[in-house]
Amino acid sequence: MNDIIKTILNHRSVRHFEDRPLTDEQIRLIVECAQAASTSSYMQAYSIIGVKNIQTKKKLAEQAGNQAYVEKSGHLFIFCADLHRHEVIGEMEGKNVEDSLRSTEKFMVALIDAALAAQNAALAAESMGLGICYIGGIRNNLEEVSKLLKIPNKVIPLFALTVGYPAKETAKKPRIPFEHIYHEEEYKQDQEAYVRELEQYNEIVSNYYDQRTNGIRKDTWTGQMARMLSNPTRMYMKQFVEKKGLNLN
Amino acid sequence: MNDIIKTILNHRSVRHFEDRPLTDEQIRLIVECAQAASTSSYMQAYSIIGVKNIQTKKKLAEQAGNQAYVEKSGHLFIFCADLHRHEVIGEMEGKNVEDSLRSTEKFMVALIDAALAAQNAALAAESMGLGICYIGGIRNNLEEVSKLLKIPNKVIPLFALTVGYPAKETAKKPRIPFEHIYHEEEYKQDQEAYVRELEQYNEIVSNYYDQRTNGIRKDTWTGQMARMLSNPTRMYMKQFVEKKGLNLN
Repeated sequence: MNDIIKTILNHRSVRHFEDRPLTDEQIRLIVECAQAASTSSYMQAYSIIGVKNIQTKKKLAEQAGNQAYVEKSGHLFIFCADLHRHEVIGEMEGKNVEDSLRSTEKFMVALIDAALAAQNAALAAESMGLGICYIGGIRNNLEEVSKLLKIPNKVIPLFALTVGYPAKETAKKPRIPFEHIYHEEEYKQDQEAYVRELEQYNEIVSNYYDQRTNGIRKDTWTGQMARMLSNPTRMYMKQFVEKKGLNLN
Repeated sequence: MNDIIKTILNHRSVRHFEDRPLTDEQIRLIVECAQAASTSSYMQAYSIIGVKNIQTKKKLAEQAGNQAYVEKSGHLFIFCADLHRHEVIGEMEGKNVEDSLRSTEKFMVALIDAALAAQNAALAAESMGLGICYIGGIRNNLEEVSKLLKIPNKVIPLFALTVGYPAKETAKKPRIPFEHIYHEEEYKQDQEAYVRELEQYNEIVSNYYDQRTNGIRKDTWTGQMARMLSNPTRMYMKQFVEKKGLNLN
């Protein structure tokens, strides 16, 4: 097993960081690694906003649900799906690109491009001995986040990546078993086997919580998911994204 | 510079592969690496379909626009945004999760989860001496692809990842300059500087094509983008995704 695979498999989210900023060289290298990821049709449909200002960090931490590790980290990268650049390009080149940019297809391209870049950034950081955590919590209130970061139309902040020197290790949560997430040749058709696999995974997750909390947390994966999903959140998203001129046709 | 950063920065798409399949051990390790990526609220909202069958590969290659390297590779992974699993969970747990699953927010979660996992898979493969190429072309005709792979509701095949032993090296296309993709503290407000940066990038891309084609290809990045975007493609996507029960509210 090579070092890259070791780093990948050893990933865990870090939520406690030392009070030690990243250097500009580290930031630049992480961004360059992000950019080296594949991009759909060379579009590079994303932007990265780096936040050092402590006031901005405090506000973002509040908006993300008072997650202290947003504020106290080595650096905060905000990954945005970005089709504003391509809107400007349309003007520069005198071409009508609006229909394309408003499409669900290009919205998907921008999301995928941004996420591929982010995962490269995350691994680059981890390879440097840093810890990371993705913060989807900024999507709690994208209206405020967008105002704070002066985000133009056709740009959606997707998540923050908080990076820093780990002060505390966290545990690695067990993933869905290989046999369930991976389908051979076609999507699994056997519904009974499918449910049975989920029940087997429940046992694994249940044991994990049991051991981690000395028997206090009794939970399963499907139970946790069903509770969470029966309480819909961020239901303003469709309207917000459309108002920003994306995902419209 | 460590090995991981070297691997990340050295990425280039590989479109010519040796006729040599991946072993089951390689496939499993690549999938386990994919799964080690972060996932929003532990949702793991994706599936991976592995295709070995040559007939299926041929059909997918056709649907992706006759891209031979879809057919001739070591293995084909199809990454899907997957909320079908969570629909089944709703039934198992007797909870109403439909409003959540139909939301644009959860559609975004599934796309991001799938892309983060895919980029881990890509890097794991590259670290093993394999080459990769993302194939967005399968989105040309998701109706057919979904039929072929027996994809259920609430699942969208996003792209294929073709993996194999490289038979031919490709060049690395120059990325958007750091100063343009990276914003400090807030999104760049200076429109003139913004356009100037794009023009500077045009020079870099123009030189790249010039050198690669011995002066035959005269092109710029903004020119290429504007031409492509003024010809909207995959405009059926919104309807398709909605028909699959996603991105609806």
